Amino acid sequence: MVNRNDKLAQFQASYLFLEITKRKEALLASCPEAKLISLGIGDTTEPIPAIISEAMERFASALATKRGYRGYGEPFGDPALREKIAENYPGIEPDEIFVSDGSKCDIGRLQLLFDEMTPVAVQDPSYPVYEIASLLYGKKEITFLPCLEENDFVPDFSLVKEGSLIYICNPNNPTGVALTKEQLSSVVKIAKERSSLIIYDSAYASYIRDNCPRSIYEIEGAKEVAIETASLSKMAGFTGIRLGWTVVPKEICFKDGSPLIKDWERIVSSLFNGASNIAQAGAAATLSAAGQKACRALQDRYLQNATLLKAALKSCGLTSVGGEHAPYLFVSFKGRSSWELFDELLEKAHLITTPGVGFGVSGESYLRLSAFGKKEEIEEAASHLKSHFLPLEFQRLKRSSILIEN
Amino acid sequence: MVNRNDKLAQFQASYLFLEITKRKEALLASCPEAKLISLGIGDTTEPIPAIISEAMERFASALATKRGYRGYGEPFGDPALREKIAENYPGIEPDEIFVSDGSKCDIGRLQLLFDEMTPVAVQDPSYPVYEIASLLYGKKEITFLPCLEENDFVPDFSLVKEGSLIYICNPNNPTGVALTKEQLSSVVKIAKERSSLIIYDSAYASYIRDNCPRSIYEIEGAKEVAIETASLSKMAGFTGIRLGWTVVPKEICFKDGSPLIKDWERIVSSLFNGASNIAQAGAAATLSAAGQKACRALQDRYLQNATLLKAALKSCGLTSVGGEHAPYLFVSFKGRSSWELFDELLEKAHLITTPGVGFGVSGESYLRLSAFGKKEEIEEAASHLKSHFLPLEFQRLKRSSILIEN
Repeated sequence: MVNRNDKLAQFQASYLFLEITKRKEALLASCPEAKLISLGIGDTTEPIPAIISEAMERFASALATKRGYRGYGEPFGDPALREKIAENYPGIEPDEIFVSDGSKCDIGRLQLLFDEMTPVAVQDPSYPVYEIASLLYGKKEITFLPCLEENDFVPDFSLVKEGSLIYICNPNNPTGVALTKEQLSSVVKIAKERSSLIIYDSAYASYIRDNCPRSIYEIEGAKEVAIETASLSKMAGFTGIRLGWTVVPKEICFKDGSPLIKDWERIVSSLFNGASNIAQAGAAATLSAAGQKACRALQDRYLQNATLLKAALKSCGLTSVGGEHAPYLFVSFKGRSSWELFDELLEKAHLITTPGVGFGVSGESYLRLSAFGKKEEIEEAASHLKSHFLPLEFQRLKRSSILIEN
Repeated sequence: MVNRNDKLAQFQASYLFLEITKRKEALLASCPEAKLISLGIGDTTEPIPAIISEAMERFASALATKRGYRGYGEPFGDPALREKIAENYPGIEPDEIFVSDGSKCDIGRLQLLFDEMTPVAVQDPSYPVYEIASLLYGKKEITFLPCLEENDFVPDFSLVKEGSLIYICNPNNPTGVALTKEQLSSVVKIAKERSSLIIYDSAYASYIRDNCPRSIYEIEGAKEVAIETASLSKMAGFTGIRLGWTVVPKEICFKDGSPLIKDWERIVSSLFNGASNIAQAGAAATLSAAGQKACRALQDRYLQNATLLKAALKSCGLTSVGGEHAPYLFVSFKGRSSWELFDELLEKAHLITTPGVGFGVSGESYLRLSAFGKKEEIEEAASHLKSHFLPLEFQRLKRSSILIEN
C-alpha cells in the first residue's frame, strides 16, 4: 500500500484528551455507579446568552426562505463581522482578520506557511497542539521554554533561536498565568532581534481582570512580528458552535521579502471554505455591546468557580497558580507523578483532572483543574478535593467539632 | 524574518475562483450598471428545506438553556449522526465515519497522512484543490489523467504509478460525467494491483439519476483501497452552513502494515475540533426520510436548470457533456482559449462562467457552466447565451419569423 507520513510514526501515545477519556471510560466500566465530576478538559457548561442564540435562530430560519438563503460566504469571513472584530484591535484593518472555525484548526493551517527548517519555540507547559502541529508539519527543531515556579511561570524568551516561530498562549493554558505589558514588550523586542515570528493564542484573553494586555497588538511594533489567533469558545461558550479568527497583519514579511498575508490568503482560500454562516451570525451578536456584557457575566461565573476551587486547595495546604485571569488552576504536588495523581483522583475522589505533564515535561508533578464546570459540580468537586487531601485526623477533628456544635 | 515554505512560491497565479471574482469586480468597476448572471462557482441558491432549518433553530435555541447547552462534541462527530451516515454505505461501520466541516478541509488534512514521495494521480480536468493540496503538502510527482472527448471523459487509470494516491471526483467536477460500475470496478482493480489508494470525492453523488454507483463502496473490495469524502453542500444546500464527512475504512493499511484509520484519528483529534453542532443537527434532519425527499426535490430543480441550459447550448450548435448526473455542463469551443471565452462572455453577455483550463490543461477550450443558479436567472442566462452565440442572421431570421407569427 501507500507510504505513511513517517512524521506520524513518532506519535506513539494518543492525544492527551483522548487518553483521559480512555482512562475515564475504563473506570466507568469497572465501577459503573461512579458519579464522576470533570475538572479535566476546558469544556464550557454555561448556556450561551439568549441574544446570541436568537441571532443564530433567526439566521437558520431565514435559510429556508428565498430572501434569507445564503450559499458560500466570503472566503475570509463575512465583511461586517471582520470589521466588527478589527475594531477590537489597535491598528488592525478588517482585511487582516480571517474568520475561522476555531483556533485549533488555524494553528494547524498556519504551519503550512513555514519552511520545515524553521525552528519552533513553545512554552513548557502549554497547549499540546503547538508541538503536535509543528511535528506533523515536519518542523525539525523545537525549543521548550520552561515555565517554572522559580521563574513565576514566565519563561526565558531569550532562549529563542534566530528565525523561529514563537508560540505564546496568554493567559497560558495550563498555568493560567497572564504576562504583563513589560513582559510582552520584551518578547516583541526579542522576536525583532532574532528575526522571529510570534504566534499569539489569545483564547483566554477575555478572562483577564487586571491591566495585562488582552492582545499582542497592544504592544508597540507587534504588528511586524506577530500573528494572533482568537476564539469565541471560552469567551462566549462556542466550544461546540465553532468560531474563531486569526489576525495576520500586512506588515509581516518572510525572509525573501514577500508578504506573509498573501500566502495565508492562498492557503485559506485553497484549503478552507469559511466558518459556518450560522456561527458567524452568532459571532456578530456576541461582539455587540449587549453580547459582550452578557459574555462578561458568563466568564465571571467561571472565574467564581475558580476562586472556589482555589480556596478548597488552599485549605488542603496545596499551592496553585492561575484562576484569576483564566479559569484554570495549576496545582503543585512536588515530587509526585502527574499521571499517578490523575489516576488517584479519578479512582478515589471520582474527579477528572488533567495531568500537568500532558502539557510538557515542566508540567510534571502538577495537575490542571478546569473551572469550566457547572457551579453545583464545582462545589461538589471542592468538597471531594477536601475529603481526599485533608489529613484524616483533621477531617475527624472537623467532624467531631460539627457533632459538638450540633 | 522567518523562512517561507518554498512550496508556496510555486503558486504564482491566484486560486481559480478568486481570479474569477477579480475579473468580475473589474468589469463592474468599468460598467457599474451591468447585471451579471453567475454560471460560475457552483454555489447553491435554493432555500434549504424547512425540516432542516427548523432542526437547526431548535438546536440553537436550546443552547441558551441549561438542559440544551452543549460544549465540545465528540471529536469525530455526534455518534447518532455517524450511525445515520454509515447506514448509507454498504459494509461501513459508524466508527469509520468522520464528520467534518466540509470536504475541502478534509482534502487538505488527508494529505498529512502520506509521505512526500507518494505519487499523486488526478483527473484532468478536475477540482483544483486536489492538485493544490498535494503541492502545498510537498508531494513531488503528479500524474494527470486526461479526460477528453475522445475517451468520453473517462481517463486511462492504467497511467497510475505504483503506490499512488488517486483522486477521483465522481460525478466529475467540471465535466459532470459519472463513471459506471464497470469503470469504477476497473479503477479499484488497478488500485489494488498498483498498491495505490483512492480518495473518492462524492460531492455530487446525490445528483446521479441512473444506476451508476453513488459510493465507491458499492464496488467489491473498495473498502481496502478507498477513502470517500462526502458533503451536504450540494446535496442539501449546505455550502454556507458547512458540513461533510470522510469515510475511512479500518481495512486500509500503509506499506508498513499500520492501519491508516489510527493516524487519521490522531490527525483529526489534534488539528480539528469537530463540525459546528448546529450544522450537525441540520445534517441529522437532512438524512431523515423526509429530509432526503425534500433534498431530492431541491436537486431536481438544479438538474432542470441544467436541462434548460443544455437545450440553449444545443440550439446554438454548441456541444456539451454533463448536466444529467451533476448540475454542471462542460461546453466545448474547439481551438479557442478558455480565459478568452470567459472574458468574452463576461463583457459581451454579462455571464460569469468558469474557464475549463482552470481545472487542468485538458480543460482548455472548454467552459464550465454551473446550473446552481435561481431558475429565473438560468432562463435569462439561456437567452443571453442564445443572443451571444446564435449567428446574427439566424437571430434576425428568428425575429422576423416571430414578427410574422404575431
